[in-house]
Amino acid sequence: MPTAEILSQGDEVVTGQTVNTNAAWLAEQLHDLGFSVVWHVSVGDVLDDIRAQVRAAADRADLVVSTGGLGPTDDDLTAQAVAEAFDRPLALDERVMAHIAGLYARFGRTMPEVNRKQAWLPHGCIVLDNHWGTAPGFAVEESGALLAFLPGVPTEMRKLFQRRLLPLIEGQFDLAPGRLVTLRTTGIGESNLQERVGTVDHDAITVSYRTILPENHIKLRFEASVPEEQVRAVVDDVAERIGRALFTVEGLGDPGGDLATVAGRALAERGETLAAAESCTGGLLAAMCTAVPGASAWFLQGVVSYANDAKVQLLGVSPSTLEDYGAVSTEVCHQMASGIRERAGSTYGIGITGIAGPSGGSEMKPVGTVHVALAAPDAVHHRKLRLPGDRRRIQQLAAAAALDLLRRKLQEKL
Amino acid sequence: MPTAEILSQGDEVVTGQTVNTNAAWLAEQLHDLGFSVVWHVSVGDVLDDIRAQVRAAADRADLVVSTGGLGPTDDDLTAQAVAEAFDRPLALDERVMAHIAGLYARFGRTMPEVNRKQAWLPHGCIVLDNHWGTAPGFAVEESGALLAFLPGVPTEMRKLFQRRLLPLIEGQFDLAPGRLVTLRTTGIGESNLQERVGTVDHDAITVSYRTILPENHIKLRFEASVPEEQVRAVVDDVAERIGRALFTVEGLGDPGGDLATVAGRALAERGETLAAAESCTGGLLAAMCTAVPGASAWFLQGVVSYANDAKVQLLGVSPSTLEDYGAVSTEVCHQMASGIRERAGSTYGIGITGIAGPSGGSEMKPVGTVHVALAAPDAVHHRKLRLPGDRRRIQQLAAAAALDLLRRKLQEKL
Repeated sequence: MPTAEILSQGDEVVTGQTVNTNAAWLAEQLHDLGFSVVWHVSVGDVLDDIRAQVRAAADRADLVVSTGGLGPTDDDLTAQAVAEAFDRPLALDERVMAHIAGLYARFGRTMPEVNRKQAWLPHGCIVLDNHWGTAPGFAVEESGALLAFLPGVPTEMRKLFQRRLLPLIEGQFDLAPGRLVTLRTTGIGESNLQERVGTVDHDAITVSYRTILPENHIKLRFEASVPEEQVRAVVDDVAERIGRALFTVEGLGDPGGDLATVAGRALAERGETLAAAESCTGGLLAAMCTAVPGASAWFLQGVVSYANDAKVQLLGVSPSTLEDYGAVSTEVCHQMASGIRERAGSTYGIGITGIAGPSGGSEMKPVGTVHVALAAPDAVHHRKLRLPGDRRRIQQLAAAAALDLLRRKLQEKL
Repeated sequence: MPTAEILSQGDEVVTGQTVNTNAAWLAEQLHDLGFSVVWHVSVGDVLDDIRAQVRAAADRADLVVSTGGLGPTDDDLTAQAVAEAFDRPLALDERVMAHIAGLYARFGRTMPEVNRKQAWLPHGCIVLDNHWGTAPGFAVEESGALLAFLPGVPTEMRKLFQRRLLPLIEGQFDLAPGRLVTLRTTGIGESNLQERVGTVDHDAITVSYRTILPENHIKLRFEASVPEEQVRAVVDDVAERIGRALFTVEGLGDPGGDLATVAGRALAERGETLAAAESCTGGLLAAMCTAVPGASAWFLQGVVSYANDAKVQLLGVSPSTLEDYGAVSTEVCHQMASGIRERAGSTYGIGITGIAGPSGGSEMKPVGTVHVALAAPDAVHHRKLRLPGDRRRIQQLAAAAALDLLRRKLQEKL
């Protein structure tokens, strides 16, 4: 197995101002590709440290991926450090310069003088063009290692990794990554999931778990020697053990995606539509839906009815129901889901009402009490939840629970 | 300034199964104590790697804090690695043994045999008693450095750091932590910001930049020797250079917070309210607002009017305006902002309409074209934007731009 090392640069990483999600993301990608990721090193914006670390990494790993330090400012020192480490003087790359100037021109702005710096790259490097920002990435080969330098902005880093670096890596390394199948679930905790799945007894299959709220993933890694038939059999077996919490399987040909993507695709395929009325989640469910490209085909409208007046005015919730049962109740939640469905003329309507905290809870309705309802053509489905965590987490879990009600309806797994 | 290094151990860290929040937390603590945190290193559960890394860290840093590898299982190798690195054979610590056995007894369980391992510690180490779990921490002094080894479970690690290690550190190092002031801005890129701020010429002040979309932060770190008066003068000077993009200053007594928190607090103080009509941002602005605890005091309602019908029905946008100018236009955006303001009876109304992509763009209105409008009691303020990036980023920047229009209005910085 070839080895990989991840370098993270920037004072914000070593001073703890930022949690290093880049390193975790890269480690997972490289691991999935079949690298043994042996080291992560983070260094501050100190030229000597970066230079020393780049050189050490080239000596001990087959692949080195570095993030950060490619911006235009004085504390961006990566290109300089690479130049010094490997005696590759910086040279102005005219093509990169034109790209950066063009980006500014396209948005009708003058390029700040400091951005010129981003076009000075180590001699003989492979430029990794950045169509998503100003900082280009670059790669060099030294001491038998491939070293790649990517910007620190996560969205740009990920794009450059996938579109520019991956082809280089695949061309250079003889990877037998086997096959990775990811089973995505929601509405079930990691330890419960582990208990349900139990052990998968096979030398050529490794199982790992990963929590990305509001989802829990099970990753099955099959060595290349495992025949297709057996891969399918094992996945089917694990899927059966998981049950209805499983919403998609990635790595066997299905398009996969997150909960909103999977639910949205099912709606689009049937020519059906959705509208949502949110109280305690404050638009989070609408934002999850409309983050999916093409959502306008199936997401008709959303209403954030924080105030009781809004529930009456926008959704037709009955003032007497509000008075009798309170805003956080089964009855109001039903009326929200049915109300938005009727008013929007959509196939399905979702209603969410609850107490996200930190204040507003009571003994009868503590913080974390949330109702979700799905108004469908044939019935209104409802769930009452008691969710753990802080405000943000309660909102996130509540929006996911509502969306999952729709997903289960569409997959006939209610 | 004394230097510190953080070591993270465990396969789950280097394979990306877990995001290293321990390292970020420790870095921030150590930095705030006055250490220059120069390195983070993460290694997998490999004895040779851990041993080599512990020894290297002792040579280059004054303080080394390691997390992980103290559990009872075969892949917990830290004590063994330290024993080998510094020739301190493992010895059974009877007191620790009794503590672990006692913990199990307290919960009425028999101690598994594997847990005995946790009481075998390097000869002559300082034991850091763990009242919150079974794995004790320990510390040794080697090569003029203090090396501390803490468990990887975040809650236990933090407790041991604060209650056991901190007194050791404070006894051993002469620390003068200084002061950190953060200026939070939005609507201005990092390079423009750096050009505006220019240089802060002072040996005892360091300046750094950090992008957390949709914000850019400037961090001013003052050594303890800088008098309060001068701290204020420098911050005022930098604030003036930044201009209207600055929305809050943290570290001088103000409560600070993100854009929605700052805008929401200003609304709450005036007893004013907000309602929002979103098209291309699909509820993201509402979600940003309602993520703020207590938002129900000032956020009345939101409408996600994806379809044209919804714009007419929910906001009173005129069908002929939609036909004449299209949904993505100054005119429709004005009507959305004014419409939601009137219907919700709020002080301010926000309207957002645009093309987030990836499809839906045209030559006249390319992807990234976004209109934001703020309907206030005295006027409707409007901006047309050309935003870069992918769908998610366009949505995020558009929601922030709309919120910033409100913030500027409230701070009289339009």
